[in-house]
Amino acid sequence: MADYAPPLDEIRFVLEHIVGLDELSKLEGFEHADLESTMAVLEEFGRFVVDKVLPTNRVGDEQGSHVTGDPDDPTVVTADGFKEVYAQYVEAGWGTVPFDAGFGGGGFPWTVGVAMQEILNSGNMAFAMAPLLTQGALDMLFAHGSEEQKQLYLPKMVSGEWTGTMNLTEPDAGSDVGAVRTRAVPAVDGTYRITGTKIYITFGEHDLAENIVHLVLARTPGAPPGTKGISCFLVPKHLVEADGSLGARNGVTVVSVEHKMGIRASPTCVLEYDDAVGYLVGDESAGMRYMFTMMNTARLSVGVEGLGLCEAAYQRARQHARERVQGRPPGASAGAPIVEHADVRRMLLTMKASIEALRALHYFDARQIDLGHHLPDPAERAAAAELAGLLTPLSKGWGTDLASEITSLAIQVFGGMGYVEETGLAQLYRDARITAIYEGTNGIQAMDLVGRKLPMRGGRVVADLMAQMRATARELQGAGEDLAPIGDRLVDGLAVLQQATEWILANGATDPVQALAAATPYLRMCSQVVGGWLLGIEALAATRSAPAGFAAAKVATARFFADHVLPTVHGLLPTITAGKDDLFALSADQL
Amino acid sequence: MADYAPPLDEIRFVLEHIVGLDELSKLEGFEHADLESTMAVLEEFGRFVVDKVLPTNRVGDEQGSHVTGDPDDPTVVTADGFKEVYAQYVEAGWGTVPFDAGFGGGGFPWTVGVAMQEILNSGNMAFAMAPLLTQGALDMLFAHGSEEQKQLYLPKMVSGEWTGTMNLTEPDAGSDVGAVRTRAVPAVDGTYRITGTKIYITFGEHDLAENIVHLVLARTPGAPPGTKGISCFLVPKHLVEADGSLGARNGVTVVSVEHKMGIRASPTCVLEYDDAVGYLVGDESAGMRYMFTMMNTARLSVGVEGLGLCEAAYQRARQHARERVQGRPPGASAGAPIVEHADVRRMLLTMKASIEALRALHYFDARQIDLGHHLPDPAERAAAAELAGLLTPLSKGWGTDLASEITSLAIQVFGGMGYVEETGLAQLYRDARITAIYEGTNGIQAMDLVGRKLPMRGGRVVADLMAQMRATARELQGAGEDLAPIGDRLVDGLAVLQQATEWILANGATDPVQALAAATPYLRMCSQVVGGWLLGIEALAATRSAPAGFAAAKVATARFFADHVLPTVHGLLPTITAGKDDLFALSADQL
Repeated sequence: MADYAPPLDEIRFVLEHIVGLDELSKLEGFEHADLESTMAVLEEFGRFVVDKVLPTNRVGDEQGSHVTGDPDDPTVVTADGFKEVYAQYVEAGWGTVPFDAGFGGGGFPWTVGVAMQEILNSGNMAFAMAPLLTQGALDMLFAHGSEEQKQLYLPKMVSGEWTGTMNLTEPDAGSDVGAVRTRAVPAVDGTYRITGTKIYITFGEHDLAENIVHLVLARTPGAPPGTKGISCFLVPKHLVEADGSLGARNGVTVVSVEHKMGIRASPTCVLEYDDAVGYLVGDESAGMRYMFTMMNTARLSVGVEGLGLCEAAYQRARQHARERVQGRPPGASAGAPIVEHADVRRMLLTMKASIEALRALHYFDARQIDLGHHLPDPAERAAAAELAGLLTPLSKGWGTDLASEITSLAIQVFGGMGYVEETGLAQLYRDARITAIYEGTNGIQAMDLVGRKLPMRGGRVVADLMAQMRATARELQGAGEDLAPIGDRLVDGLAVLQQATEWILANGATDPVQALAAATPYLRMCSQVVGGWLLGIEALAATRSAPAGFAAAKVATARFFADHVLPTVHGLLPTITAGKDDLFALSADQL
Repeated sequence: MADYAPPLDEIRFVLEHIVGLDELSKLEGFEHADLESTMAVLEEFGRFVVDKVLPTNRVGDEQGSHVTGDPDDPTVVTADGFKEVYAQYVEAGWGTVPFDAGFGGGGFPWTVGVAMQEILNSGNMAFAMAPLLTQGALDMLFAHGSEEQKQLYLPKMVSGEWTGTMNLTEPDAGSDVGAVRTRAVPAVDGTYRITGTKIYITFGEHDLAENIVHLVLARTPGAPPGTKGISCFLVPKHLVEADGSLGARNGVTVVSVEHKMGIRASPTCVLEYDDAVGYLVGDESAGMRYMFTMMNTARLSVGVEGLGLCEAAYQRARQHARERVQGRPPGASAGAPIVEHADVRRMLLTMKASIEALRALHYFDARQIDLGHHLPDPAERAAAAELAGLLTPLSKGWGTDLASEITSLAIQVFGGMGYVEETGLAQLYRDARITAIYEGTNGIQAMDLVGRKLPMRGGRVVADLMAQMRATARELQGAGEDLAPIGDRLVDGLAVLQQATEWILANGATDPVQALAAATPYLRMCSQVVGGWLLGIEALAATRSAPAGFAAAKVATARFFADHVLPTVHGLLPTITAGKDDLFALSADQL
């Protein structure tokens, strides 16, 4: 049996009851994306991932990616199988599914793309990063590219024949994008010449595609300092002629790839731009503003990397726990599979319940992104986008923290075997660790949550969400003895969240450092309450309409989360409301 | 500047105020181990670790250990520098310090040995595992070896000229030692012939020493099933003649070494015993009972591996945070080192406070082990040993969980650079992950805590400890405005611990599964309360007698722990008292 099977029943249930896909598919352009058609796509994609992508995961980790070829024009060679499987991915058109039909996309909602990302990441996260970065570049060009740029680049990028990259980071500018120093000098023909060094460029160079479209943040001469002076440029590896054919090699060269703890198959490149031809995307000095347009989808996608790893790890741990006979539980007459030990149960249920909560959060967040783009009413679009803005730091921050926690629990279930590379658990754990760092560290997610998102509309966005959660809690409380305790715990959690939110809004308004000091535990608290709420909705829906076995499992899972995971928020309130003083009581030297 | 400097001021403070070394050194045999002499040893040892051992850490990770040599009698070659540095370690006599002077030991308290282990693990955990396993074998032989065995083996093992191993695990017997199948057949000369396969044998074969003394669990013919039928055998790699010289090669062969996520320099061997000559240690079928004699020291030592990694990771993160300029904190006019960001402060203080609490716990636990062996009064010895028994699962479980958490925080402080292997943070994180697994998984530590340790003397051992903690809390509450809030938080934490303890004792008495279901969160809760208590003692002691700067830092650290770390225990009480039902609501198939 394969290490992983796409959890299609769970995905279908979430698409039906959390996303409301049949409602979503009534929006203009999504008419073909009803639940049955969507599940047919996901089923077929799942087979592709299990048959083709999953087998490349371990070999990719073992071989990594390496700089090779002509020293004057080096390239990066990926691990065995990557090139062939990527070609099949392009050939089948899997990358096109959630993109605009006008440029060769499948025209499915973004939510469906997120479901595909989950599955692809469960198969091979390092492989999934090539389409992921292309998606980032695509988002940027769809939103801000000129008509000419769109016609020339989008079809090949939507199909995946060309991949894309995002070039933000420089040696002295990590999280601080405003410190970018790469220069963009205007040329007489209206193009620019780009010069500078970019680091941590995912799939910045590789052998999977015939061209690579780099989107590069740089400064024009005389641009204002900081983030306000940053422009975005399109810099293709090979210049593209007007007819779409490939022209001369452009002045961008891979210098090296990083030797990383995980995602080793994904080449993380240092790129040198030397008088490279670049095309301005949108307006000069608007680069940072443009980055924010794509932030929700990109950050959600990184959260989904976490979800995919969690699911892959959980399935292996569950299987191992069912098979491995060790020790005798109290009262048992003989040795038993370790799944019968209470502490192993605790680990497995923590994994299962957290994953189901996380999947609901991610798909719900994706739905808000879809609604934010496609609802006919502008005010409703804006409200949906605001909710997506509030949820995205949770999707990214919690999803990627859970990625480390849950892959670690899977190792623990395996014991010593999990620490040995052959079982593949260690790779999941190593791969997972980057997700809390890139696309904005989780500290930055938390700062975004308390600094930008909570204050939206004077706190009304979070207040509206809490009102919605309270309504679900009340419904649970009145829905019989199996569901009522879930409602009770949710009420308790919401009370704590309310206190924390009020504290942060009140204290952060006069002193932003107070909000920042509370940010990380607040992100966790908020995520767990939202997770408990979404599992409550699932328990209600399953009780109403799912087969008895599925419904019983949903209720038991929601109950476990409510009793064992959600209440940890009570332990976070004191650190949130303790304030910043303890953090600054010591000087940097005294630490 | 080196990546690591032994935290001698902290260690000295803990030895003085938590261990009471000057009191301890009044016990018979320890007279030379006063604080000044001990610190002189530690200072010199710290220099050795920084100058010699630390430089082998990364090369050891890169090269690992490999099976090599004659296919009929293979050996294991360790990484560059290991052999030379180990020879210097033996030559200087560092391994002898905490052992019985009668066999060439330095006669220092075990607590001093623990301090040395912390430093050695900060330098190179994989290297430290060779002496660690020798220590395990030594403990066994000191306690249960025959006089002849002691004379023949102990001097060379105390010096480190010969190393030792512990052979418990077999392919189908991981945590379940009772399932051991290795056979020991009596020979006419009173020795035994050992046949079977052992796995996960740390430094089971290597090139550091001229002989390796394996202690092997095996079954004699007709022995009862389960743990009651297990005997312990001494099986030297080279047989030892009566005059101590090395004789024939014994029938034990390395088959392979594991390809592990971390501690790659430490060879984890599969050993094949084929009619190997073995000598019974102690009585037949007493092997498991003997294992328990050495359990506290071995488990504490694994916790100390965690402590050493935490300290190494913290020092690097702290240095990086002081130097790395990124972003502008609210109100600042220019970019600042990231140590000035509230969220980075939260990470660094979480690390610092947790490490200081953990060090206090480990050294206090070691002190109890010393008292349990050396107090003149048998009843007081027994009481000290009981307290060590209660604390050891905390030392191991919490210490090794923190190892993963704190090395992870260090990576987070480094951002993307932490994920790149060159900075060395990733190695600490990878190395750390094994510590929660071996020497009894942390789940087993938690089961030991609730199943064996809490019920000691009908719950009086834990009740006595809580009474002692309450006394400290009251003292803090009366010690002025800086210390009183620490006392208040400790009182809150103790109230929660009291409830949890009563729940487990009451419910576990009628249904052991109830206790086991609560075990893991209870271990965490208990550890954090004990940690807060010990930091409270340190804050009181520092206020009384330390220099002003040191005292202020101690108080601020204890205050941070009390306000931000300790209160998370409130979030653990609900999951402890929720009981087992949620864990068993689903069948294994429904998970």
